[in-house]
Amino acid sequence: MIRFKKTPETHAEDYRGNEMTKADTPYASALITDLYELTMAASYFKEKMFAPATFSLFIRTYPKNWGYFVSAGLEEVLRYLERFRFTSDEIDYLRSTKMFSEEFLRFLATVKFTGEVWAMKEGEVFFADEPILEVTAPIIESQLVESYVINAVHLQSLICTKASRCMTVARGKTLIDFSLRRTHGAEAGLKVARSSYIAGFKGTSNVLAGQRYGIPISGTMAHSYVTAFDDEIESFRAFARTHPDNCVLLIDTYDTLSGARKACVVGREMKQRGQKLRGVRLDSGDMADLSKKVRQILDEAGLNDTLIFASSGFDEYKIDDVFTKGALIDGFGVGTNMGVSKDAPSTDMAYKLVEYDGKPVLKLSTDKMTLPAGKQVYRAFDRSGRFERDIIALREEKPIPGMTPLLANVMENGRATFTETIDDARKRCERSLKALPEDITRITTPGKYTVEESEQLRRETKEVEEQAKRQIIRK
Amino acid sequence: MIRFKKTPETHAEDYRGNEMTKADTPYASALITDLYELTMAASYFKEKMFAPATFSLFIRTYPKNWGYFVSAGLEEVLRYLERFRFTSDEIDYLRSTKMFSEEFLRFLATVKFTGEVWAMKEGEVFFADEPILEVTAPIIESQLVESYVINAVHLQSLICTKASRCMTVARGKTLIDFSLRRTHGAEAGLKVARSSYIAGFKGTSNVLAGQRYGIPISGTMAHSYVTAFDDEIESFRAFARTHPDNCVLLIDTYDTLSGARKACVVGREMKQRGQKLRGVRLDSGDMADLSKKVRQILDEAGLNDTLIFASSGFDEYKIDDVFTKGALIDGFGVGTNMGVSKDAPSTDMAYKLVEYDGKPVLKLSTDKMTLPAGKQVYRAFDRSGRFERDIIALREEKPIPGMTPLLANVMENGRATFTETIDDARKRCERSLKALPEDITRITTPGKYTVEESEQLRRETKEVEEQAKRQIIRK
Repeated sequence: MIRFKKTPETHAEDYRGNEMTKADTPYASALITDLYELTMAASYFKEKMFAPATFSLFIRTYPKNWGYFVSAGLEEVLRYLERFRFTSDEIDYLRSTKMFSEEFLRFLATVKFTGEVWAMKEGEVFFADEPILEVTAPIIESQLVESYVINAVHLQSLICTKASRCMTVARGKTLIDFSLRRTHGAEAGLKVARSSYIAGFKGTSNVLAGQRYGIPISGTMAHSYVTAFDDEIESFRAFARTHPDNCVLLIDTYDTLSGARKACVVGREMKQRGQKLRGVRLDSGDMADLSKKVRQILDEAGLNDTLIFASSGFDEYKIDDVFTKGALIDGFGVGTNMGVSKDAPSTDMAYKLVEYDGKPVLKLSTDKMTLPAGKQVYRAFDRSGRFERDIIALREEKPIPGMTPLLANVMENGRATFTETIDDARKRCERSLKALPEDITRITTPGKYTVEESEQLRRETKEVEEQAKRQIIRK
Repeated sequence: MIRFKKTPETHAEDYRGNEMTKADTPYASALITDLYELTMAASYFKEKMFAPATFSLFIRTYPKNWGYFVSAGLEEVLRYLERFRFTSDEIDYLRSTKMFSEEFLRFLATVKFTGEVWAMKEGEVFFADEPILEVTAPIIESQLVESYVINAVHLQSLICTKASRCMTVARGKTLIDFSLRRTHGAEAGLKVARSSYIAGFKGTSNVLAGQRYGIPISGTMAHSYVTAFDDEIESFRAFARTHPDNCVLLIDTYDTLSGARKACVVGREMKQRGQKLRGVRLDSGDMADLSKKVRQILDEAGLNDTLIFASSGFDEYKIDDVFTKGALIDGFGVGTNMGVSKDAPSTDMAYKLVEYDGKPVLKLSTDKMTLPAGKQVYRAFDRSGRFERDIIALREEKPIPGMTPLLANVMENGRATFTETIDDARKRCERSLKALPEDITRITTPGKYTVEESEQLRRETKEVEEQAKRQIIRK
């Protein structure tokens, strides 16, 4: 049995997350929670249930075509937990609902998060059923943070995975996040920029993400720019005048090949001035076919260095498709379909109570089984450094020899014990994706990675399950 | 031709939006924009292009199975435009990128939004190709706000439409937004709560949405609550003690029918104390079948008043399905599938330049045509008050007799001229949905609503198209 450890406050008091600041989590009000967290908390309070509870965060199943996940969102969770508290305004609002006793509200005003967190670091690859993050704290605290913890890790892990799938088929070409306009809110826009950068994207069009996270920003012109001029070629010339060092011309406003020819005129004019036309961008039509024709037009004009960028509806499927058709594209603006994870805009990520007051628990309901108790995930690597298989074990078990534990203690007594830069996470992600067996990374019909449960965990699950079954009365 | 009108500042200086405050748009930084808005702005500035530009916001196509849209997000757009400006921190960041001239940055520090906005009010039904919102302002201003305007209206209109589809098949039963944990960020959680409330949902589990928007909040217990007790029935009794007036028991933790029987025991105990078991909640299994069996168990225990709620994977398709199978369910927690709009997590909403310096413009590119110039949408109603057909016309045309214009002037000189409560929007949505021809509201294979273009708009489009085609050079 795992006991809640009261460890002394030894960790850095001067800890500051260097990625996310207060400004990044303006919605991190303690009221960003489902009401039932509060009605349950009120009842735990009335019943004097203050013992530690461990909750486990995991994804049950893969979306169609997906064979793995990448973890992201931990940084946000740690910042949130460190600051968790109810303001007097928030307590006043709760009072106004007349759902809660004055004693409970007075108690609630004092609640902070004092627990511990074990988690996979950002950029780590994980699989269905594996705990990504486990929270242990007095049950009221660990219960109240449920909605926010799921929300934060769900979105960023979802997008990091989706973006990593785009990386897999990108043939080393540059991918840039263009999704801001159709992400689900501006906050999502920021987090998509961050998560896709961790997955290996080179930059984002989202300027605030550039400021907040230090991600390279990218962008040149829209159709509106071209149509604001009387002549397309004059719009190209004007842009070259303003941005001689970063001139990428959007050439499909009227007709892509016609636009390419005009871009060549401007490109040659730039050359004469000792400048270089950096690129052209395609945004509609048959991209594979057009890219080949545009490449030829550029090359014939002596603009062999001018790159071809493409945008409009790209995701892993469309990127792979255009390359299969021989596209000559040097970089992609990857927008909406990645930013909302179009084929899988959600996963069934859950945060389940697995232990209360030292007692492992689980629920039984149809097709929604949980693994009880605090856990650890171990990974075996083969000689070439590739993932071989994972074992989910009890956290209290002896470490499995020759295997690497993936969950680290990242918070003690409500203080983060771990921090890293976004680039650390990005490097981890690159390493992990490289080490993933190739069949698992396939963007359709991926292979199935082996995830086993340890002997002890299996025994424990069976035992707790037997106990749980005794709850059922027939008649 | 429409000219940019400089109207005097006659509108209410004391205007205050009563739905969204600064706190609701913490991400409304002017840097929440795609970099290309700024690179274009820099070029407009260098080229001394300060003339008014009109941009039109519209959706090109319906997602599969969708036959209409509901407008939402205007309130957020107005608040954003009123506050639009670059802080000195933001200017410093832009300076650090070395992409912009000092003159431009100095100019940017002075930019505010001074333009006008015409828009459909929130809760109004609209159709593909119809402008939902049109912005007219000096081109740098109207260009810079593009990304945010699309982002705000896209998410809320998407969710409002999705939620309205759930309402269509709900047979008058209660729908509650349960989606917070898997919306794309906490901001999205708030906006989903708001949009689904406008669509007719009765409330949300999202406590902050309750505080911010005055939406009724709802929620009782999770499986964790049940499993934190040694006995399921003791968890039920404890919850009844804490929340005698709002006791809804989650009965599927171990076995739904077994849970229902225990709920009956607790329900009868409550009855003896003069209290009432408000409801039970099903969260897994065959909902239609289980709801009938649970209804029978409750009725046999004399708990005819106890309601049956259901959650887990509901959206318009699953709600319709369980009712088709005879489900006896009184209310639904509608979560992830609505909150991320699972079958259509995005639409192809675009914000296109339609007029610059008094000259209507459009782009030609393959399958992405735009209607030029500032526009108005007119709607005809039949004798029973149902929508008959819409006509998209030029805004400068004479009003079409017997038809109702849908775009209102909601902002002049950068100040909102319109405000309403969220309940006004909710009532408008209810009226509009009722007036929608029934075949258009079908959740699969909906009918096609008639949207025509006025004679003048058709002529104008043709003319501008001819001009645009002259841009194309062959060879």
